[in-house]
Amino acid sequence: MKIAIAGAGAMGSRFGLMLQRGGNEVILIDGWKDHVQAIKEHGLQANFNGEDIVAKIPVVLQSEINETEKVDLIILFTKAMQLEKMLEDLRPMIKEDTEVLCLLNGIGHEDIIEKFVPMENIYIGNTMWTAGLEGPGRVKLFGSGSIELQNLGEGKEESAKALAEKLSESGLNANYSSNIHYSIYRKACVNGTMNGLCTILDVNMAGLGETSTAHDMVVAIVNEFGQVAKAENIDLDVEEAVTHCETCFDPETIGMHFPSMHQDLIKNNRLTEIDYINGAISRKGKKYGIATPYCDFLTALVHAKEQILQAT
Amino acid sequence: MKIAIAGAGAMGSRFGLMLQRGGNEVILIDGWKDHVQAIKEHGLQANFNGEDIVAKIPVVLQSEINETEKVDLIILFTKAMQLEKMLEDLRPMIKEDTEVLCLLNGIGHEDIIEKFVPMENIYIGNTMWTAGLEGPGRVKLFGSGSIELQNLGEGKEESAKALAEKLSESGLNANYSSNIHYSIYRKACVNGTMNGLCTILDVNMAGLGETSTAHDMVVAIVNEFGQVAKAENIDLDVEEAVTHCETCFDPETIGMHFPSMHQDLIKNNRLTEIDYINGAISRKGKKYGIATPYCDFLTALVHAKEQILQAT
Repeated sequence: MKIAIAGAGAMGSRFGLMLQRGGNEVILIDGWKDHVQAIKEHGLQANFNGEDIVAKIPVVLQSEINETEKVDLIILFTKAMQLEKMLEDLRPMIKEDTEVLCLLNGIGHEDIIEKFVPMENIYIGNTMWTAGLEGPGRVKLFGSGSIELQNLGEGKEESAKALAEKLSESGLNANYSSNIHYSIYRKACVNGTMNGLCTILDVNMAGLGETSTAHDMVVAIVNEFGQVAKAENIDLDVEEAVTHCETCFDPETIGMHFPSMHQDLIKNNRLTEIDYINGAISRKGKKYGIATPYCDFLTALVHAKEQILQAT
Repeated sequence: MKIAIAGAGAMGSRFGLMLQRGGNEVILIDGWKDHVQAIKEHGLQANFNGEDIVAKIPVVLQSEINETEKVDLIILFTKAMQLEKMLEDLRPMIKEDTEVLCLLNGIGHEDIIEKFVPMENIYIGNTMWTAGLEGPGRVKLFGSGSIELQNLGEGKEESAKALAEKLSESGLNANYSSNIHYSIYRKACVNGTMNGLCTILDVNMAGLGETSTAHDMVVAIVNEFGQVAKAENIDLDVEEAVTHCETCFDPETIGMHFPSMHQDLIKNNRLTEIDYINGAISRKGKKYGIATPYCDFLTALVHAKEQILQAT
C-alpha cells in the first residue's frame, strides 16, 4: 500500500516508521523545512523503544507536492490549525479514489476535510499512541497504543474494517469502531479538561488533581461537552467521561506529565489547539443554542495567554 | 475623636497616620506580631509623599484587646478573610455606641459585621486611597484618594455625613453617598475582573487589555455582577461598569501595575480575597437562582492556583 503521512511531526513520524517497517511504501509530508531537510539528509532518526534507528523514508515539503504523486491512503496528522492549509497543499495528490484517514486530536475536523475530499473516502479516528519530537528529523517513540477508526461514507464499513486490518499488519493495533464520534467526544473531554486547565494553571495533571476545585471544573466542562454531543445525537455518559478524565490525575500513571498544550504554550511558546477542543464546543454550542460558558472562558483565557507570551 | 484602626496593614496605616496628624487619638490594631512589635519599638515608619517620617502611634495585638479599651469609631481594614476573626477579637471594645466603618474591598461584608455590631452603628464605604506595605512597621504612601460612605442604620444619614466630615478634616476627602451599594458593586467589578484575570494569566492590567479576548471576559464577568446586583435592587449600569473596569488597561495611568491579588498570590504566595469578590457573586447567585459561571470558574481557578503555589 502506498501511504502519505500528511504532517510528519512526532506522531506522523511514528506512523510513517511503523507502516514502512510493516512493508508499505511511505512518503512523509510536512511544512517544517528544517525537519524535512534533516530527514532528507540523514533519514528519520528515532529512538524506538530504546533502540536508536535510522529510517530512510521519502519526504517532501507540503508546498512542493505535485500532480504526479499518487497514494492509496493519506493519514492526516497535522496540528489542528494547520489542517486546512495542508489539505490545500495536498489537493494535487487527492484523486477520486484516495482514502483519507484523520487522526487529529479535537472535534469537528470532518467539516474541513469534507471541503477537499468526497465523504465516501473519509475515515476518522482516534489514537492512543504517543510520540515525542526531539528536534528536526529526530523522534522518541516509546510504549504501545491503539487506533479506533470509522468510515464517514455510507456503506463503507467494510472498507473501514479493511483499513484497520491493514494498519494492524504494521503493529498499529487498529480497530473498527461503530461509534467513533462517541470515542472522539470522550477523548476530547480529556483534552478539554487537562490541556486547558493545566496550561492556565501551569501545573501537571497530578497537581491539578490535588486541588479542591479540580473536580468541579472538570464536571462543568465535561457537562458542556455532553450537552453539545447530545445535540449531535451522541449520548455521552458524562459521569463515566468525568471518571475517565480524572484517571489522568494518577501520579502512578501519567499524572506527573504536563499535557501537550502546556508543552506547546508554556514550554515552547507555540500556539495551541484550543479552538479545536473547547473552542469547538463553544462554536457548536452557539450553533445549537447551548450555553458553554466554561469552554468559552477557558478558550478566551488560553488565547489571552498565547498573546501575552507572544506565542507563534 | 478616639479611633481604632482594626487591620493596620498598608491602608490601615495610612488612615491611622492621617487621622492622627489630623488631631485624633488613634490606636492601631493588627494580628501580625512582627508588624505590631516594629511599630511599638520604632514607631510607624512611612514614606509619605516622598518624605520619610516616623509616627508614634499606639498599637495593640488584636488578641490582647481588653474591656478597658473604648473608642468612638472603629475603622475595619483587614483582609476580607480576616474580618470575622478581627470582629471576634474586637468584641470587648465594641460598646453600645461604638461606630464601625467598614472600608474593605469586596461585597457582602455587612452580613458578617451585623453579627457583632448593631445595624444602627454600622457604616460601609469605599475608598480610592492606595498604600503599600514595605515590611514590618514600614509603609509607602503616595498620591491622593477619596472615600464614599453611607449608614446601614435607618435614619442615620446625619451621623454618616458627620462621620464623612470628621474624616475629611484629616484630609481623607470623604463624602456621604446616598447609594453606597451601587459604588461598592461598581468597584467590585474592577476587582472582579482585573484581580482574578491578571492573577491567573500572570500579567499586568495593560497586558491583559492588549489581548483580543480581555473585553469579552470583562463583559461576561461584569454581566454576572449586574444580574446579582439587580436581585439586590441595585440597577448597575453594566456598560458603564465595563468601561470603568477597562480604564485600568491604560498604560499611561495604572495599566502597568499588577493588581493586589497578583501581588498577594503570585508575588508573595498569600491567600487571596477571591471568595469576597467573584466568590461572593457565586454565593449570592446561588441564593437568588442566578447562573454565574464566569465567577464560579474564576474563583475555582484562583483557589486551585493558591493550592498549587501552597499559598498561606
